[in-house]
Amino acid sequence: MISRVLSAELAEHAGQRVTIAGWVHRRRQLKSVSFLVVRDRCGLAQAVTARDLPPEESVVEVTGTVATSPQAPGGYELVAPEIEVLAEPSVAPSFDLYRPVVGAALPTVLDHAPVALRHPLLRAPLELSAASVAGFREALDRLGFTEIHTPKIVGSATESGANVFGIDYFGRPAYLAQSPQFYKQAMVGVFERVYEVGPVFRAEPHDTVRHLAQYTSLDAELGFVRDHRDVMAVLREAVAGMLESVRRRAPSALDLLGVRLPRVPEEIPAIHFTEAQRLTSSDEPDLSPAQERLLSEWAEREHGSEFLFVTGYPMSKRPFYTHPDPARPGHSNGFDLLFRGLELVTGGQRLHRYDDYVRALASRGEGTEAYEGYLQAFRYGMPPHGGFALGLERWTARLTGAANIRQTTAFPRDLHRLSP
Amino acid sequence: MISRVLSAELAEHAGQRVTIAGWVHRRRQLKSVSFLVVRDRCGLAQAVTARDLPPEESVVEVTGTVATSPQAPGGYELVAPEIEVLAEPSVAPSFDLYRPVVGAALPTVLDHAPVALRHPLLRAPLELSAASVAGFREALDRLGFTEIHTPKIVGSATESGANVFGIDYFGRPAYLAQSPQFYKQAMVGVFERVYEVGPVFRAEPHDTVRHLAQYTSLDAELGFVRDHRDVMAVLREAVAGMLESVRRRAPSALDLLGVRLPRVPEEIPAIHFTEAQRLTSSDEPDLSPAQERLLSEWAEREHGSEFLFVTGYPMSKRPFYTHPDPARPGHSNGFDLLFRGLELVTGGQRLHRYDDYVRALASRGEGTEAYEGYLQAFRYGMPPHGGFALGLERWTARLTGAANIRQTTAFPRDLHRLSP
Repeated sequence: MISRVLSAELAEHAGQRVTIAGWVHRRRQLKSVSFLVVRDRCGLAQAVTARDLPPEESVVEVTGTVATSPQAPGGYELVAPEIEVLAEPSVAPSFDLYRPVVGAALPTVLDHAPVALRHPLLRAPLELSAASVAGFREALDRLGFTEIHTPKIVGSATESGANVFGIDYFGRPAYLAQSPQFYKQAMVGVFERVYEVGPVFRAEPHDTVRHLAQYTSLDAELGFVRDHRDVMAVLREAVAGMLESVRRRAPSALDLLGVRLPRVPEEIPAIHFTEAQRLTSSDEPDLSPAQERLLSEWAEREHGSEFLFVTGYPMSKRPFYTHPDPARPGHSNGFDLLFRGLELVTGGQRLHRYDDYVRALASRGEGTEAYEGYLQAFRYGMPPHGGFALGLERWTARLTGAANIRQTTAFPRDLHRLSP
Repeated sequence: MISRVLSAELAEHAGQRVTIAGWVHRRRQLKSVSFLVVRDRCGLAQAVTARDLPPEESVVEVTGTVATSPQAPGGYELVAPEIEVLAEPSVAPSFDLYRPVVGAALPTVLDHAPVALRHPLLRAPLELSAASVAGFREALDRLGFTEIHTPKIVGSATESGANVFGIDYFGRPAYLAQSPQFYKQAMVGVFERVYEVGPVFRAEPHDTVRHLAQYTSLDAELGFVRDHRDVMAVLREAVAGMLESVRRRAPSALDLLGVRLPRVPEEIPAIHFTEAQRLTSSDEPDLSPAQERLLSEWAEREHGSEFLFVTGYPMSKRPFYTHPDPARPGHSNGFDLLFRGLELVTGGQRLHRYDDYVRALASRGEGTEAYEGYLQAFRYGMPPHGGFALGLERWTARLTGAANIRQTTAFPRDLHRLSP
């Protein structure tokens, strides 16, 4: 490996001659002295010299003596540096990466993602994503979950019919999976508790700030639950683990973006759908974005919580595999988790008896043919179980306050965008 | 949650009345006494009763008093049990899950995966996979890597042209990504060190025991390397981390499958391609499976290592982004890692200068048009870098000695198989 110290380690080498390596983040040539700011994976480091400097985004190794400097990033800088250029850019970035604010509109940023994401502000959401996923896994590993990997190519467009991408599969029609729902349920029969972090695909025909054609779904499913409340308790642990991990792993990204992390109550407040309707003076069978905002404000006001569970959604609005609420006909053991005014997670208890599946499909006018592979698991004995799915990009957008979900993923895919 | 103890915890509750929950793994009704073996996510537990027992794969809660029993799994059993059936199977599995050996041929197993994978022998490889991936991430996290998620839908079928799945992307042609190669390289410009664990897709038109249409690729890429040897050193750490994790997280799966874990030498032996040719008396520009086996035997014999790096593959056999060996024209800074007679990992140093890419493409008779998104990163300054990709299923197959790679993934996809 190139022998180097990282920008964050300069203080440990005060007075020594060391080499740093990274990109020229900024050069400032004054009359008698020049400042070179180098960006590496940990941050920025400054070198002071009298010579001419290579242009921004040049890749350099800089060898110099570590001296204290109150003005330099981190309080140290390299003096008397030798600069070796490892690679020179052939063009300048379409906007300056060193400016504190991103000086380009989103389409420009997205078109130039490979270089734009080097901007600390544009890179930071991806650091939060990575830290969040690590926390999700840690929390579920602690609870005895097993990680699984399931097919992204499926034979029938079952789960929601519309909005699937078709594939030519060796001359046969096939589809990109919209979720690992059926597979994670089947794997409850094998491991009891499973999770998957992976891509899911939605042929979303609308151009919105909330939807992507591919996103990363954090899925979990567990057996031997009493009902959906056990699933909600696990989800609470997962979310708390994600936040704890972000705090520990990505403090500088949090600082840079000015993210205020939410507190997760020991028990996240929950209200029944009928109560949510009453609070928002509605009699629609689903919640609108405006109602979700109102309910979040209510939870903040009444419970001091930025999270709110809404339970008991009408069966008519939930997928066929949803378990009904035995005590309230027409309502389900399904829930949503609202976070800062928006639905973040959908989950619930599922049916677990084969006959119930056959009946549920029949009541929606569907046969079992397209579902044979799925229904197999239930023929052979499945425990009461449930689970949830959390969209990683939506989570990061809520945390950072991003106006557009495309700001939370490196290379978004949407109705119009297929590159880079 | 259903209040229960796990099978593995019985010893801690000797003399107490506890509830276990799981599947009826086996029932044996003798004249005056019946044995009920319950399977949960940790293993097996036995209950002894005089009553009739529900059929295999019934989901049950069994409440009984924990008593020592030398014959029972784990040395304890439940006596005076009450048995509650949570769900009954509607059909019997197509082969007995309780028999020590799997009594069905592979196609039957795969057709019935949701129930077949409950067999401890068929489930164990998936436990090893999960543990391996956790170890891969741990090792790279320690080395300062950041996890990324990249597009699985791409606009051009670039990397190898053939064997791509076509998609209808909102009326436009698109393709399933064969690897995250281009994206992970671009992200070296952002995070220096990145990894991704995700699905990759190959429209493999041959029906072999070694190929899947979807598999899980463990990809890593890192910047500021001197050459490919720095990449090999990181790969060594990743593999050692995977094995350490398997040992720690999945000891019972290892036992059950009789897996002998390999030792990873501090420095894995490496030979140059020309030397590999000499040892196997060949002058072909690539290594055949038979040669790979011979070389593995040689490494075992000469170095006591089940791992062997082969470096310096001819440029003509490596992808266009491969960095040449500056000292040996015609040879590359690309390597393979052989493990137990088979190529497990391919990797190497990549080109990092824009002009080198343009030249490399031109020398293969290709223009840059299809690669514009990819080449962007190199226009803006990229450090010397390299990386590798390890196929998870192939790894697990090598560890377990599985004859067919389909035994190492829950729901394989191949030329013929699109369900379950």
